[in-house]
Amino acid sequence: MPALDFWFDFASTYSYPAALRIAPLAATAGVAVRFRPFLLGPIFKAQGWNTSPFNLYPAKGRYMWRDLERLCAELDLPFRRPQPFPQPSLLAARVALVGLAEDWGEEFCRAAFRAQFGAGDRIDDSATIARLIAPFGVDPGEVLASAQSEPIKARLREETQAAQTQGIFGAPSFVTADGELFWGNDRLERALAWAVRGS
Amino acid sequence: MPALDFWFDFASTYSYPAALRIAPLAATAGVAVRFRPFLLGPIFKAQGWNTSPFNLYPAKGRYMWRDLERLCAELDLPFRRPQPFPQPSLLAARVALVGLAEDWGEEFCRAAFRAQFGAGDRIDDSATIARLIAPFGVDPGEVLASAQSEPIKARLREETQAAQTQGIFGAPSFVTADGELFWGNDRLERALAWAVRGS
Repeated sequence: MPALDFWFDFASTYSYPAALRIAPLAATAGVAVRFRPFLLGPIFKAQGWNTSPFNLYPAKGRYMWRDLERLCAELDLPFRRPQPFPQPSLLAARVALVGLAEDWGEEFCRAAFRAQFGAGDRIDDSATIARLIAPFGVDPGEVLASAQSEPIKARLREETQAAQTQGIFGAPSFVTADGELFWGNDRLERALAWAVRGS
Repeated sequence: MPALDFWFDFASTYSYPAALRIAPLAATAGVAVRFRPFLLGPIFKAQGWNTSPFNLYPAKGRYMWRDLERLCAELDLPFRRPQPFPQPSLLAARVALVGLAEDWGEEFCRAAFRAQFGAGDRIDDSATIARLIAPFGVDPGEVLASAQSEPIKARLREETQAAQTQGIFGAPSFVTADGELFWGNDRLERALAWAVRGS
C-alpha cells in the first residue's frame, strides 16, 4: 500500500483543514497515512523568526485569516481565530505522540485541531487535553504524565529534527515514500496522487 | 460581466503558470480579467527583504523550484530555472503597461513569462523585449522609448502602490470587484468562482 507522511504542527493554521481532510481522501486513494506531529518553532527560529510569519508580516497574516475563513466555510468546518496565536503546541504534540503509539492518536489530532480552530479552546491547557482524550477510555493523568516523560520529549525533538532534515520548512507538509515533499493544505491531493504513482 | 484583477510581477515564479492559465479559465467562467503588472520589490523591501524570500529562506526556495518544476510538467509548460533569480522585472513591467494600453499587452505578458521561465531568456535585456514584441507589428524602438517615458514610470509606481493598498504582499494575486483577495496560482480557480458568485 502506498504511504504518505503527514507532518504538522498543532499551531499551524492550514494544518487544521489538512488534518480534517486527509483520512477520507487517503482512504479513497488507497494510501496509508502516518501522522507526524512536530514543532515549527525550532525551524522558524533557525530562520531568524521568533513567532509565526503571519504575525511578523501583517499583510500576509490578514490574508491568511480571511483565506482560512473562506476555506473552512467551503469545507463546512467551524472556524474561530485562536487567541493567542500561535498557541504553544508542545503539550498537544507530546500527547499526540503518546496516542499515536496506541490507537487513539489520529482521533486526538483531529479533536485538538477542532478544539483550537473550531471552538477557540486553548490546546496548551492540560484541562482541555484531558477533556479531549476522555472519550478514548484512557486515564488523563497517566497520559499527561507519559506525555511529559523523557522518551516522549526526546521523540518529539527527534521528529522535529527529522522534519528539518527532510527539507520541511512549514506545515502542513507531506512526504511520499520516494522523498517527494509537498507543502500546504492545497497540495494534499497532489501528494496523494504522487504517493500512488510513485509506489 | 464579472471582473477579476490579475496582479503579477514578471519575476514571480508562480505568476508564470497563472499567466498562462488565466485566459482560458476566465473565458470558460465568463469573467473579464484585467492584467495588472506591478513590482514586488518595493513591497518586499517594506517587509525588510532585499531579495526574494525564496533566496532568503533556502529550504523554502529549494522546495519552490521543485514544486514549480512538477507543476509545469503537469501543465505541459516548458520550465527552465532563470539565472539570475529574481530577474529585474522593471523593464518588462513597463513594456507590459505600454502594450496593455494598446491591444498586445496580454500576449506580451505570456510571451515574457514563457521566455524567462520556459526558455531561460533574460527579460531585463531590451534585445529580448524587442524580439518578443516584434510579432505585434509595433516599432521596438518606439515601444522601448515609451516604456521609459515619465507617464509609464509613474503609472507603474502607482500600480505598485495600489497593490500594496489592497493588501497584496505576493504574486500572483487576484482581486474581485468586491475586494476579495486571493493569493497564489493555486487560488486562481477559487478567485474566478468568487468573481462569478460575487458579481
